[in-house]
Amino acid sequence: MKKLINAPETVVADSLAGLAAAHHGLSVDIENKVITRAAAPTAGKVGLVSGGGSGHEPLHGGFVGFGMLDAACPGEVFTSPVPDQMLAATRAVNGGAGVLHIVKNYTGDVLNFEMAAELASDDGIEVTQVVVNDDVARSFGVALSSCTVPAAGKPTFELDDSEIELGIGIHGEPGRSRGEMATAADIAAAAMDAIHADMPLTGDVLVMVNGMGGTPLIELYLVYNEVHKYLTGTGARIARNLVGNYITSLEMQGFSVTVCRLTDALTELWDAPVDTPALRWGR
Amino acid sequence: MKKLINAPETVVADSLAGLAAAHHGLSVDIENKVITRAAAPTAGKVGLVSGGGSGHEPLHGGFVGFGMLDAACPGEVFTSPVPDQMLAATRAVNGGAGVLHIVKNYTGDVLNFEMAAELASDDGIEVTQVVVNDDVARSFGVALSSCTVPAAGKPTFELDDSEIELGIGIHGEPGRSRGEMATAADIAAAAMDAIHADMPLTGDVLVMVNGMGGTPLIELYLVYNEVHKYLTGTGARIARNLVGNYITSLEMQGFSVTVCRLTDALTELWDAPVDTPALRWGR
Repeated sequence: MKKLINAPETVVADSLAGLAAAHHGLSVDIENKVITRAAAPTAGKVGLVSGGGSGHEPLHGGFVGFGMLDAACPGEVFTSPVPDQMLAATRAVNGGAGVLHIVKNYTGDVLNFEMAAELASDDGIEVTQVVVNDDVARSFGVALSSCTVPAAGKPTFELDDSEIELGIGIHGEPGRSRGEMATAADIAAAAMDAIHADMPLTGDVLVMVNGMGGTPLIELYLVYNEVHKYLTGTGARIARNLVGNYITSLEMQGFSVTVCRLTDALTELWDAPVDTPALRWGR
Repeated sequence: MKKLINAPETVVADSLAGLAAAHHGLSVDIENKVITRAAAPTAGKVGLVSGGGSGHEPLHGGFVGFGMLDAACPGEVFTSPVPDQMLAATRAVNGGAGVLHIVKNYTGDVLNFEMAAELASDDGIEVTQVVVNDDVARSFGVALSSCTVPAAGKPTFELDDSEIELGIGIHGEPGRSRGEMATAADIAAAAMDAIHADMPLTGDVLVMVNGMGGTPLIELYLVYNEVHKYLTGTGARIARNLVGNYITSLEMQGFSVTVCRLTDALTELWDAPVDTPALRWGR
């Protein structure tokens, strides 16, 4: 696996330097690995902080900006950020109204964010944590290939030419089962069946077809078409959608599909203007 | 090479069906492979049409919308669209002020767009053609891996684990030279040296670091950092930038870098609002 890097130990810092050079609306502390909105903190607003291992770009730094995160803490590749980063981010975005930590349900992230919240509390900053924990019911991932962590230098797992991994995690965690390579229609149906078994798919829904990093957009739209047909069949209507690379796993080939039931209140929040490196609309 | 497809012969139609389902601001004629703005034509406005082989997404359909193209004609994968598609697109976006064909300098595209322009002229539609022909001086591509055309089923070319191809075309056309795999700094410098030799890099510039489809964003930002350092060294200032997958080559790993000298007039045009599936700003 060839990678456009200088050395495994400088991947995150070098990439953050590029992010900083490209986006002047962000303030990037490369040494401490904290990305904040350049205008942070906003007085009287709850600060929103997320973070996790690198290698999932544009998550999380690409979602820092107007209408989304106030700060993100990237760890080393596939490695949780440390509490000190999270504390620095929390301090940087504290506008006096408290800070919300948005934490993916990954053990290291959960523990380190808890520790950071305690440290912030010692500073007099009120912190609340929400854990994002949406694997089936609402999300399901499929890998056609492994990824290779730069420091490891070899694939995280092996898949032969006729195999796919169903239900995979974003670090290459093994899924529910290993299956035979099949058509996009069959693979999409397997993913949607798993979601549908957990949450009947009717009514208005938001759908994200997310690329894992190495799958081209022509294939993601093709998968979206299959998901759209499946949902039409179950009586759901896709009221909002995203198709693209949003939560990746380095150069892994594959996709994840996320379905979220929409209420009027959720739709209104979704439609609110956002202006970040990875998503922009409505401002 | 595993692909998320149903069959090689339905890739383009299936993917267009997904594009149509995802973006209600587009009107997609799947059978004839023509993508237009749903609101086209705009009376009194010059219609803008582009097109070319599929497999380069989001090019061209992802750039149809407010402030960019009025229509795009996708051919089969890596195959020029036919004159009838281009004619249908030209008719669909003709608002009475003529139509501009924006043509990449690929023999089949150039010839077919010329034929379409003649046919449109027979309809009384005035058509002018601009050929985009910017390989060094302004753009330079590097491949770390080949891509595989679905109908071919095998890689377009072979690269071993220690090789890269410098100066590659977006269909995998051989480049200037084959080199040894190197650091991102050295690879970026090789690309920038080629551009700098042709066009001295000083003053305000627009830079695009474009992924070829299989390279993750963490690496593209890392390359952007190297390009930024290089340009600082030559006395240029990056006034505007794009980092991401904009003109891809299926799942090829690699990038291209494009440098465009900016004038005040060009910058103003660049900053004009756009609202398309692949790019949005300022509206």
